[in-house]
Amino acid sequence: MTVRETCELAKKHAAYPALLTSEEKNEMLAAIADALTDNSSEILSANAKDIENGKDLPAYLIDRLRLTEERIAGISEGIKQLIKLDDPVGKVLASWVNHAGLSIRRISVPLGVIGIIYEARPNVTCDVTALCIKTGNAIVLRGSKDAFITNQCLVRVMKNALEKHGFESEFIQLIEDTTREGAAEFMHMDDYVDVLVPRGSANLIRTTKKSATIPVIETGAGNCHLYLEKTGDIKVALDILLNGKLQRPGVCNALESLLVDKDIAEEALPVLVKALIEKSVTVHGCQKTIASCPEFADKIASATEADYATEYLGYEISCKVVENEREAIDHINKYGTHHSDAIVTRDEAAADMFRREVDSAAVYVNASTRFTDGFEFGFGAELGISTQKLHARGPLGPEQLTSFKYVIDGNGQCRK
Amino acid sequence: MTVRETCELAKKHAAYPALLTSEEKNEMLAAIADALTDNSSEILSANAKDIENGKDLPAYLIDRLRLTEERIAGISEGIKQLIKLDDPVGKVLASWVNHAGLSIRRISVPLGVIGIIYEARPNVTCDVTALCIKTGNAIVLRGSKDAFITNQCLVRVMKNALEKHGFESEFIQLIEDTTREGAAEFMHMDDYVDVLVPRGSANLIRTTKKSATIPVIETGAGNCHLYLEKTGDIKVALDILLNGKLQRPGVCNALESLLVDKDIAEEALPVLVKALIEKSVTVHGCQKTIASCPEFADKIASATEADYATEYLGYEISCKVVENEREAIDHINKYGTHHSDAIVTRDEAAADMFRREVDSAAVYVNASTRFTDGFEFGFGAELGISTQKLHARGPLGPEQLTSFKYVIDGNGQCRK
Repeated sequence: MTVRETCELAKKHAAYPALLTSEEKNEMLAAIADALTDNSSEILSANAKDIENGKDLPAYLIDRLRLTEERIAGISEGIKQLIKLDDPVGKVLASWVNHAGLSIRRISVPLGVIGIIYEARPNVTCDVTALCIKTGNAIVLRGSKDAFITNQCLVRVMKNALEKHGFESEFIQLIEDTTREGAAEFMHMDDYVDVLVPRGSANLIRTTKKSATIPVIETGAGNCHLYLEKTGDIKVALDILLNGKLQRPGVCNALESLLVDKDIAEEALPVLVKALIEKSVTVHGCQKTIASCPEFADKIASATEADYATEYLGYEISCKVVENEREAIDHINKYGTHHSDAIVTRDEAAADMFRREVDSAAVYVNASTRFTDGFEFGFGAELGISTQKLHARGPLGPEQLTSFKYVIDGNGQCRK
Repeated sequence: MTVRETCELAKKHAAYPALLTSEEKNEMLAAIADALTDNSSEILSANAKDIENGKDLPAYLIDRLRLTEERIAGISEGIKQLIKLDDPVGKVLASWVNHAGLSIRRISVPLGVIGIIYEARPNVTCDVTALCIKTGNAIVLRGSKDAFITNQCLVRVMKNALEKHGFESEFIQLIEDTTREGAAEFMHMDDYVDVLVPRGSANLIRTTKKSATIPVIETGAGNCHLYLEKTGDIKVALDILLNGKLQRPGVCNALESLLVDKDIAEEALPVLVKALIEKSVTVHGCQKTIASCPEFADKIASATEADYATEYLGYEISCKVVENEREAIDHINKYGTHHSDAIVTRDEAAADMFRREVDSAAVYVNASTRFTDGFEFGFGAELGISTQKLHARGPLGPEQLTSFKYVIDGNGQCRK
C-alpha cells in the first residue's frame, strides 16, 4: 500500500474508534495486552531479524531496537494500566444557556487520525496504538526502517487480537514505505491525518515542522535550567542538581544549565561544582564560576554562548553566576527551550516572580525538573512532552489527545 | 522595517502584555476605544486615500474597506465590550498533588505572539489588537496593501493612546511589506510568532496552511447542512432553512445544503423548495427532490457531486433526499467542512445519533447554524471560527487565545 492509501484507510475508519464505549475500548486494550505476551516468541523472532539486519548500527540503537520477554511483558503491563484510566472522550467540559435560550455543551471528542513518526523503538508502536484506542483516535504509525519487521509483527498481533474479539482493526495503520520520500509524503497527508507527532531526534522534529502540512505537535527539546536564588537552600539545590543532571542524562527533562545568584555563589558553587566533577560531569562555567571555585578552577571549562544554548543530553552542564533573579529569568527565557525550569529559593516573592515570568511548560519551585512526565504528573500515559503553546503544553496525556465539539440543543431558534 | 525585524520586535516585547494586570489591560482598552473616536477625522482621511487608490476595486471590496464615523464608533464600542469580560489569563484550570507530594497547577497563560494575515477590512486591525491586549498576547498584523494607509493610521492612533497612558506599545506591530513575498516570509517566522491565523479567502487559508512553518489555526470554510429527519417539524425546518440561507448568505455559518428524509420528502419539499425559490434562491436538487416538487420542477437545477461540496456563500443551495439518518450523517461527514450542521427532529434517539456521529465543530438540534459565532455563544468577542481540531474548534474567543503552563511547588523532591 502507498502512503496515501494507508492514510486514507485510517481516515475512512476513524469514526469507528471514536464511537466505541469505554468498556469496548478497555476490552480492546486487554485483548492486545494479552496477545503481546501470548505471541512473544513470534515477536522476538521478528525482532531478531531486525537486529540481524541492523548489526552495523551503533550499540545504543541496537539496545533501543531489541525486545526481550521482559520488555514485552513491560509493554503489556503498560497497556493494562491504561484500562484503569478515565475515558477522556465524551466528557462535558462546559455547559451553559445562551441569550437565545440554546443549551450549549462543549463535549470532548477524539482528535481523529493521529500520525506518528518515530525511530527504532518498537515499544512506541504498541504504546501509541494503545493510547489511541483509549482516546478513540485512529492511528497511522511510521516507524524506522530498522524496526520494520518488528513493527509489522506487532501491528499484526494487535490487529489479530482485536479481530478475534469481534472488533474492527482498520483504524490502526502502519506505513510500509519507510523511505525518506515516504516520510516526506506522509507529512503532506493533511487530507487524512489531523495531527502529526514526530518523536525522535531534534533533526526529525525540525524537518517535520518545516515540511508538514498536517498540524504538528512539537515534542522533545529540553534545555532545562536550575536557578539557585540567593535565599535558596544549598542542600536542596545540590539534590535537585544531581537528580536533574544524573538520574537519566539523555532525556528531555534532564538539567543542562545551572544559574547561581552572585550573593550565594561563593558559598554554593564550590559545593555544587565539586559534586558534579566528582560524578564525572564536565562543567562549562562562566568566569565568575571559575573564580568562585579556586580549588578546582583548572577542571572547569570556559563557557561560551553556544554552551548556554546546548542541550547536552549527557555528562555536561553549563554554569553561570547571575546578578539577580531578573538576569536568571531573562537568561532562561532567552537560551531555554521553554520545557522545564526550576528555582531553589526560600523567598516567596522570588518564587512567585519565577512562576509568573519563566515562559516554560513546567516551572518548578524547589523540585526536580525530572518530574515533567505524563506518569509522574499522574496522567497514566504520555505520547511525549509538547514544547509548543498551541493545543497542549507539557506531557501529552490522554486528555491532550482529544478535541471537542459544541452540541447545541434548541426548539427552533433562529438568529436575529 | 523588514518582516523579520517586525516579528522579532513583537517577540522581544511579548512578555510585557503577558504580565499586565487585568486592570491595566482594561485601562489600555478604554484608552484605545476613546482614541479611535477622538481621532476619527485623521482616520477617515487616511481611509479616503486608500479608497482613492482602490477606485478600481470591486464595489464589495470598497465597501469592506470604507470607514465612516459610525463604523469607527462601532469598533470603539466593540472594544469597550471587551473590558467587561473576564480576564482569561492566570486562571487555575486544574490543580492536584502528585504521588511525590508536589502541588501541580495548570494555569492559563497567553499564547505569546499571534500573527494574523487578513484582507482589506480595517476593523480587523482594531478588533484583533484589542482581543490580543485582553488576552495578554503580542500581535503582528499583516493586512492587505489596499488598506495599508488606514491600517498604519489605526495602529499609530492605538499605540499613541497606550503611550499617552504610560504603557508600552511595541508588542503591537504592523508589517510594512505588503507584497506577496512579504506574506510568504511572514509565514516562516516561527522563531518569533507562536500562532498564525489567516482570515480571508479560501485561497489565502489554503496557501497559509501549505506554506507556513508557524502553527496555523485554520478558520472559515463552512459547507453547513440542515437535515430534516422524518419526525421533524416542517415549520421549524422552514424557519431554520430560511434563517440559515438568507439572514446573511456570505458568511461561513450560512446553510449551503438541505437533506430531507425520504419519508417526509413529499410533504416537506414542496413547502421548503417553494419558499427558497420565492426568495430567489437557486436550488440544486437531486432527482428525487425534483420529482417531489412537480409544480415547479422546471425551476430546480440538477445537483451534481460538485454542488454537494460547494460553499456557495450566496443565493444558492444544494438539496438531496436521503434514505435515512445514516445516509444523512455520512453525507455531511463526507461533503461538509466540519463547521456547523443541524438536524430538525422530534425523535430523541435520532437527535442523539446526530449529536454523536456528526463530526463538526457545532452540531445543532432544532436550531439555526447561524449561531456559531463568538458573540452568539456568549464569548464576548471572536477572532474567527476554527475548523480544525487541534487547539480550538469553533469560535475563537478570548479563552481560545490562551495556552497554559504547569506551576509545580515542592520542598526538595527529586525523582526516584
